[in-house]
Amino acid sequence: MGTVKSDAVTYKNLLKHFIETQDEKSLYGAEQISKSFIKNNILPEEIVNLHIQALTELYPSLSSNVQNSMEFLLETMISYGLAHQEYQTLREEQS
Amino acid sequence: MGTVKSDAVTYKNLLKHFIETQDEKSLYGAEQISKSFIKNNILPEEIVNLHIQALTELYPSLSSNVQNSMEFLLETMISYGLAHQEYQTLREEQS
Repeated sequence: MGTVKSDAVTYKNLLKHFIETQDEKSLYGAEQISKSFIKNNILPEEIVNLHIQALTELYPSLSSNVQNSMEFLLETMISYGLAHQEYQTLREEQS
Repeated sequence: MGTVKSDAVTYKNLLKHFIETQDEKSLYGAEQISKSFIKNNILPEEIVNLHIQALTELYPSLSSNVQNSMEFLLETMISYGLAHQEYQTLREEQS
């Protein structure tokens, strides 16, 4: 596992573009990139982690409240990651 | 589907407590509540939605950049929700 570096860059660029323009196309990009993440066995909490990274790089003065809130969200997603891994295993067993 | 209202309140309270104290106990609470969400078929994007709601209630003057960024994250999580639903179906078929 582990995020492909180029995907991290693409995510940050799409995010930046969406924040600046609220462009529907960037949202479509988000959908496409998340499908690619799933294919590459990237877990949901890794997306949240990627999001935190991108956000702090784009806004270095991001308030500590927001940063802390994202850490909490990350923790919440870990259980989903475990459930998702279980799903991957089930699917592999069936194929 | 649909978040149980009391879970939404619990999430907000745990989040608030964590932001204010960075207390490990709140992180443990996050883990517990997410297990309860999974049991109740709450999808990952619904957690992100819940997080956005809680954050805007706690911080009404949250910057539009952060709000937009969260909308982008929400979109990214939708594909995970679909994958997660597929997993639930597989698991039901096996039990």
